[in-house]
Amino acid sequence: MNYADHIRTIEDFPEPGILFYDIAPLLGNGAIFANAIHDMAEPLRGRVNQVVGLDARGFVFGAAMALELGVGLTMVRKAGKLPGETIQLDYALEYGTNTIELQTDTLGSKDKVVLVDDVIATGGTAVASVELVRRTGATIVEFCSAIDLPSLGGSELIKATDVPVRSLVSF
Amino acid sequence: MNYADHIRTIEDFPEPGILFYDIAPLLGNGAIFANAIHDMAEPLRGRVNQVVGLDARGFVFGAAMALELGVGLTMVRKAGKLPGETIQLDYALEYGTNTIELQTDTLGSKDKVVLVDDVIATGGTAVASVELVRRTGATIVEFCSAIDLPSLGGSELIKATDVPVRSLVSF
Repeated sequence: MNYADHIRTIEDFPEPGILFYDIAPLLGNGAIFANAIHDMAEPLRGRVNQVVGLDARGFVFGAAMALELGVGLTMVRKAGKLPGETIQLDYALEYGTNTIELQTDTLGSKDKVVLVDDVIATGGTAVASVELVRRTGATIVEFCSAIDLPSLGGSELIKATDVPVRSLVSF
Repeated sequence: MNYADHIRTIEDFPEPGILFYDIAPLLGNGAIFANAIHDMAEPLRGRVNQVVGLDARGFVFGAAMALELGVGLTMVRKAGKLPGETIQLDYALEYGTNTIELQTDTLGSKDKVVLVDDVIATGGTAVASVELVRRTGATIVEFCSAIDLPSLGGSELIKATDVPVRSLVSF
């Protein structure tokens, strides 16, 4: 299926000079969405016992993949959103830093997980999420995204952490 | 199924005096999650052609329900997250205001939708979302949540807009 036909580009969003890849048409079409989730999930069947979705559009793909695979969903969130005991990781952005968080009792050394997000761009949040999930002892089987923008270098950075990367479509 | 056994309470989160209902155990168990999505979605089969998920935990339940029902997903987001043309709605919080947003080309008068969120508490975002979606001309068949906290009054406020409310579990 040619998923690229269901992803549109919008210039200068969220900032001037940025080309935004909008997944709304893909999500809004039930048949295309179901096909996308099937194609994202199927190679992972029997290989993972948990999907880790990245805040917030990663929840869309991650939750549907978890349902498709019959496994649970764990959320990696921006700091301050998760209750109870958490582990945090700070990482550098172009300007300033960001913090992501995971509840301590959600994942452990017996878990085999896939990390899921909508887009791999510069890879900052993706690589930080790999590091955060590894601190729980869980094994990361794959990083899976709907869209990869390889010219921005993120997927190479993820692969450099020894995590395989797979995406529905690359631009 | 007794979903309440898979939802834990955490005191004083995100602020002192607030009792937070944490859905992480429900999401993390693949069998329980799949059952929850089935029970949330099944009464809507054939009655909606689109699921509207509310930012951000509503995306978790909404995306999985869309997959289960074979329909698409539309996102209602906090302001500034959606590209292209949007309609916005401001609503009052206890202190200050909040703004939610929807892309203009996602829903129209032929659409029959369910609005989905994780928790109905005071209902501020829920009622604002009802108003925002109605401005597109779409028909709201139901507001569906995993958890209802009826003592906080939100579900009554939603019903007062002539939208039926259904939840997996009430506390």
